[in-house]
Amino acid sequence: MKVGIVGGTGDIGEGMALRISQVHEVILGSREEERACASSDACHLALDEKGLPCTCSGDSNQDAVDRAGVVILAVPFQHLAPTLASLAGFEGKVVVSPVNPMVRKDFFFFAPPPEGSAAQLVRRLLPGKAAVCTAFNNIAAGSWKALDAPFTHSVAVCGDDTAAKAVVMELVGSIPRLAGFDAGPLGVSPMVEAITPLLLNIAKYQKMRDVGIRFS
Amino acid sequence: MKVGIVGGTGDIGEGMALRISQVHEVILGSREEERACASSDACHLALDEKGLPCTCSGDSNQDAVDRAGVVILAVPFQHLAPTLASLAGFEGKVVVSPVNPMVRKDFFFFAPPPEGSAAQLVRRLLPGKAAVCTAFNNIAAGSWKALDAPFTHSVAVCGDDTAAKAVVMELVGSIPRLAGFDAGPLGVSPMVEAITPLLLNIAKYQKMRDVGIRFS
Repeated sequence: MKVGIVGGTGDIGEGMALRISQVHEVILGSREEERACASSDACHLALDEKGLPCTCSGDSNQDAVDRAGVVILAVPFQHLAPTLASLAGFEGKVVVSPVNPMVRKDFFFFAPPPEGSAAQLVRRLLPGKAAVCTAFNNIAAGSWKALDAPFTHSVAVCGDDTAAKAVVMELVGSIPRLAGFDAGPLGVSPMVEAITPLLLNIAKYQKMRDVGIRFS
Repeated sequence: MKVGIVGGTGDIGEGMALRISQVHEVILGSREEERACASSDACHLALDEKGLPCTCSGDSNQDAVDRAGVVILAVPFQHLAPTLASLAGFEGKVVVSPVNPMVRKDFFFFAPPPEGSAAQLVRRLLPGKAAVCTAFNNIAAGSWKALDAPFTHSVAVCGDDTAAKAVVMELVGSIPRLAGFDAGPLGVSPMVEAITPLLLNIAKYQKMRDVGIRFS
């Protein structure tokens, strides 16, 4: 599987590259290809040190879309629409949104766009032929990056395209200790995205770090 | 701790009584005291059979409020407002809402009232002196009732009253294998309640039963 990470130089994107590039070919994208290459080099270094395989390469966001079959949009919600507007060629791609629209005031709360969720916004903004799924919404950047810490998470996967969802479930299941759960159509995505501000609140009030979730 | 369960003859209420009455004095309430007594008798029978203690008694919903320090509103969302309108005497009580407003169409989705959540509706409907918390929202009735099955759940607790939240956290922690997580003020409750329709979707699409969650 070729996995493109748009926004791969952000915290979440870098973390995802560390885990996914051990298993799949990862094209780590950025608006600036130089920064993508620097993040890719850091990924190689971190995994080499542990004797782990790494297939990461740095490229532009557009090339991350063009070269991959599965494109993960690892950008903060506020950058989602402008990022998508700057890119093309999503036709036939499986697009994964791990994006969570949220706001922090006294506490964190879910602040979805009128479409209902970030994933539903992505579906509206992309041409009809991109198959949009949610996945990885509830895993903190710190968890992705802490290669020596336990990384046992459940991942709710939503999407309307059965074949695309099967690809995403396979991607999730290929990462050690992640378990994918089919949560239904993309209409379920608001409930998946809303978990993340809840986890941030639990981290804040319960004094924890990088809180994750498991279904059983 | 004296725990009143309003709506104690429903599936969730009966299940809660089975677990909580092993640890605390439970007043299982119903609109019809006779039905409450029948449910209480069934609770005694089920626990006696296993050699487990049971302190449950059946009573009217109003008596369940009057006799308890902690009142759990174990009613479906659509019955919440009429039930509260029929009861009085909540002043000084710790009121726990495990209620999740949701609708099923093709899938389950979160359908909150204008207040934002069921718990926030409860706060609006009750006199100022009741301290409202959420807890137990994400545990299925089947899990409460299956006394021989694993019952390991995380329970997100929200509330604005620190002392009341401490009581609810103590109640949660007193039930074997439940872990309470302080999720912040009552404003966080929409994110807690929204998890339940997600769990029902996962159960449906992933072909599971009584899906629960754990935070870690």
